[in-house]
Amino acid sequence: MVELLQETTTKGHQYEEETCLGQETQAMDIRLNSELFTLTYGALVTQLCKDYENDEEVNKQLDKMGYNIGVRLIEDFLARSSIGRCQDFRETADVISKVAFKMYLGITPSVTNWSPAGDELSLILESNPLVDFVELPDNHSSLVYSNLLCGVLRGALEMVQMAVDVKFAQDTLRGDNVTEIRMKFIKRIEENLPAGDE
Amino acid sequence: MVELLQETTTKGHQYEEETCLGQETQAMDIRLNSELFTLTYGALVTQLCKDYENDEEVNKQLDKMGYNIGVRLIEDFLARSSIGRCQDFRETADVISKVAFKMYLGITPSVTNWSPAGDELSLILESNPLVDFVELPDNHSSLVYSNLLCGVLRGALEMVQMAVDVKFAQDTLRGDNVTEIRMKFIKRIEENLPAGDE
Repeated sequence: MVELLQETTTKGHQYEEETCLGQETQAMDIRLNSELFTLTYGALVTQLCKDYENDEEVNKQLDKMGYNIGVRLIEDFLARSSIGRCQDFRETADVISKVAFKMYLGITPSVTNWSPAGDELSLILESNPLVDFVELPDNHSSLVYSNLLCGVLRGALEMVQMAVDVKFAQDTLRGDNVTEIRMKFIKRIEENLPAGDE
Repeated sequence: MVELLQETTTKGHQYEEETCLGQETQAMDIRLNSELFTLTYGALVTQLCKDYENDEEVNKQLDKMGYNIGVRLIEDFLARSSIGRCQDFRETADVISKVAFKMYLGITPSVTNWSPAGDELSLILESNPLVDFVELPDNHSSLVYSNLLCGVLRGALEMVQMAVDVKFAQDTLRGDNVTEIRMKFIKRIEENLPAGDE
């Protein structure tokens, strides 16, 4: 097998004549991209839709999975970000938007729509990497496709002693103009350090 | 709710006194990290282990899901990388390692163990982001945890007219020193452009 000429012309793309890998790779700014994650997440949601009877069950399952992810992700997040304790819920929201979302999804939602009491806010996602390539079929009109994210936030915040309620208020997948995650502070969880923990 | 002091001291980490978000965020090099993907992938594998009777079925399912992902991911890859046609299987292997793996998983496997005929090679992954945090339970000794990757490669390469066979030859999860993906070129797929395609 000496030569394997390959056509890399696929739908919608025309590619230039062969580029020499050597130089190209060096010059290219290779950034970690989320498409593999996006498509893998799609496979997960698809699998759950096969496994569970209705969208509500799938939503619940996604939230639960997200929660389990969040309680583990928080440690990685704290270690990487070197973020210390937040002074208040406003700072927490800022950290979530500017550091956490940026770190794991590459986006920075805007923090807005604060309740007068300062215990409720919206994260507005101009774009949502999880839904690239996605269209909801008609028979899944109640599916909260990205619901995993709510669970992640809930689980992660619980580990830093904050009980929150998180849900999608708007979703571009369902025809809304933006994607909006609504987060409500419920209570500060009293810390009971297990004996022997540092 | 005026102040929400939060202890961010969790297992194994001690954090400095509060850092001010403003400056920190600016100064920090926030890079897209794969931990959320890693944990989400773990949720997918866990779900499949619940759904299917044995490891072999799960492996098959992961490969199939990966294939479906690969046939879609290739277009994103070609568009982002501006990589043109590869001259031979060697160049293809280099592109997979240095560009594709780097782009989607943040790692660059070494390309090695070429067969004399040049139709078979190994991708050696010093580290595999998919298995961070993972330990295989004893009752899943036949699980090829990262098998999705084999499917992705198979699907993506099929879209650029290369039929390949891909499988894990070694896996750190199963006690091997490195993770090794073995890839064998089978044949060049004849291109039959559908009428009307550009």
